[in-house]
Amino acid sequence: MVTKNRQFLLAKRPIGLPDESTYNFVESDIPELKANEVLVRGQYLSVDPYMRGRMSDAKSYAAPFELDQPLNGGVVGTVIKSNHPNFSEGDTVTGRMDWADYTAIGGDQLRKVNPDQAPITTALHVNGMPGLTAYFGLLDIGQPKEGETVVISGAAGAVGMVVGQIAKLKGCRVVGIAGSEEKNAYLINELGFDAAINYKTTNDLRQALKEACPDGIDIYFDNVGGEISDAVFSLLNFHARVPLCGQIAHYNDTQVSMGPRFLTTFLKRSILLKGFIVTNYEGRYEEAIKDLAKWVSEGNIKYKENIVEGLENTPDAFLGLFRGDNLGKQLVKIS
Amino acid sequence: MVTKNRQFLLAKRPIGLPDESTYNFVESDIPELKANEVLVRGQYLSVDPYMRGRMSDAKSYAAPFELDQPLNGGVVGTVIKSNHPNFSEGDTVTGRMDWADYTAIGGDQLRKVNPDQAPITTALHVNGMPGLTAYFGLLDIGQPKEGETVVISGAAGAVGMVVGQIAKLKGCRVVGIAGSEEKNAYLINELGFDAAINYKTTNDLRQALKEACPDGIDIYFDNVGGEISDAVFSLLNFHARVPLCGQIAHYNDTQVSMGPRFLTTFLKRSILLKGFIVTNYEGRYEEAIKDLAKWVSEGNIKYKENIVEGLENTPDAFLGLFRGDNLGKQLVKIS
Repeated sequence: MVTKNRQFLLAKRPIGLPDESTYNFVESDIPELKANEVLVRGQYLSVDPYMRGRMSDAKSYAAPFELDQPLNGGVVGTVIKSNHPNFSEGDTVTGRMDWADYTAIGGDQLRKVNPDQAPITTALHVNGMPGLTAYFGLLDIGQPKEGETVVISGAAGAVGMVVGQIAKLKGCRVVGIAGSEEKNAYLINELGFDAAINYKTTNDLRQALKEACPDGIDIYFDNVGGEISDAVFSLLNFHARVPLCGQIAHYNDTQVSMGPRFLTTFLKRSILLKGFIVTNYEGRYEEAIKDLAKWVSEGNIKYKENIVEGLENTPDAFLGLFRGDNLGKQLVKIS
Repeated sequence: MVTKNRQFLLAKRPIGLPDESTYNFVESDIPELKANEVLVRGQYLSVDPYMRGRMSDAKSYAAPFELDQPLNGGVVGTVIKSNHPNFSEGDTVTGRMDWADYTAIGGDQLRKVNPDQAPITTALHVNGMPGLTAYFGLLDIGQPKEGETVVISGAAGAVGMVVGQIAKLKGCRVVGIAGSEEKNAYLINELGFDAAINYKTTNDLRQALKEACPDGIDIYFDNVGGEISDAVFSLLNFHARVPLCGQIAHYNDTQVSMGPRFLTTFLKRSILLKGFIVTNYEGRYEEAIKDLAKWVSEGNIKYKENIVEGLENTPDAFLGLFRGDNLGKQLVKIS
């Protein structure tokens, strides 16, 4: 039996891309439980682009990680010990837990996962936060209508893949933008996207989008920002909607990036843009999880995981998000 | 009795600011009436920034003006002759009519104005399109709540002045941005704005806004764009709303203007931005006109007009909008 806990602490707020000086990988005792707390042994943890924001101390939707404290994020794991009436030893649970072997956490911050319904890792993507993010961003802000054209940047990411599949369920034409032929082949052949554009090898992204979207673009689900968005914006239709979910092109910027001003287009075409974060919709998770679980179990939402072995490799798995390594959801198998 | 009609035709699409080569000022016969048409002698015409867009042939919400055809816009005038059952000689009417002494127009495109209720010129601003624009942009997109802070660019323009006064009626703190001390004194002393900033003489607009908005900015009603918006965006609060009504800083751009990318801020703070044009709300004009007329008659919405005499001076009155000459609604008294 393991008697020590390994944890990643935030050693230094990164400037630009995080590197090894960002983290401190330490051993400590397994935490003691307080009243209503549960001790969870992590099985899988999720690395997500938004975590880069929490490493900074700028004003944002999520509180910054604290220096010399554990980093944390979505984890699925097993209850080892429980001081909370709703949880017992052996339960599979998910919640925001440490980049660590063990986390002590209030039971009210955990959600039970049924391991017989779907693989437990899906609680970290299609049946979890990325799925919910796709669901609310597309359906609540995007308001897709049958026959409309939806363009997704970061289409092969954990959120983008779900967005595209829900948009197909709603009868839309779906065009993904991603960074490799392998990813694009997957989007088209496995997930049923109508077209996919490789922004790394396309000379004229705007022209490629124009050809892939003969009726213009009604919804642009943006995970990326930067020059990809520049190309999309000029092709948006009247009354287009832009759910703004991520700006990964800018998370490591060390100074303000400049780009073409586009608001005259947004004005002339009565375009809606809305930044959002999934927790805005906390009160409505139940309806969404139900829909997602149904679509996943029926095979209408497929998924792909990329699993790195070993807690110690978490920083590299996280960096991979910015290198565009991952096809599908990037997870770490803790041990 | 005048037997000739004077008209401004669009001679050439301007590049940058319009000049005398843009127009052709011609004499023609008074138009003949077809079935259901009404002959209106214009009394006042309105010049508005959006008309610059219609002089170009770029894709926009309003069809471009046609070359060698009359320019047109909001006019209030008197019925001279009517082939339409709803209108009789002597009626005061408003609608989209030519930059001309006379216009023949379908009766279904006219609205009657009651000259006993308010001065007829108000049908071109507080009781007309600019008032409706302010009303729907602020109330429908901005959704102001008591105690919130509203910042308005182009605050001394026809739309901006109404936005600020409605926001005060809704219990908000109202901060205007305009281009002269005279305008700002008017906003504060006559219209009850809480503060006003002169963007032409303020060295650090962002700092000035910060001081004028100690609780941040909840609604930014934007008529201007460019560097003024750059300064505002970084001060927007979580869940802020940006009704995008005008981008006058860019209407005469001859190439794409560059500016700082701001969407990471919009993402992190769940900010909504929506471009709009008043005709999106056509089905709801009646409720709005009723509210506006009530507020105007009770003195809760005040207004200021700047009237240029003579149809022949219309191009110069129009140019004045881009020079920032006007305090309040710019009108032309046709004869």
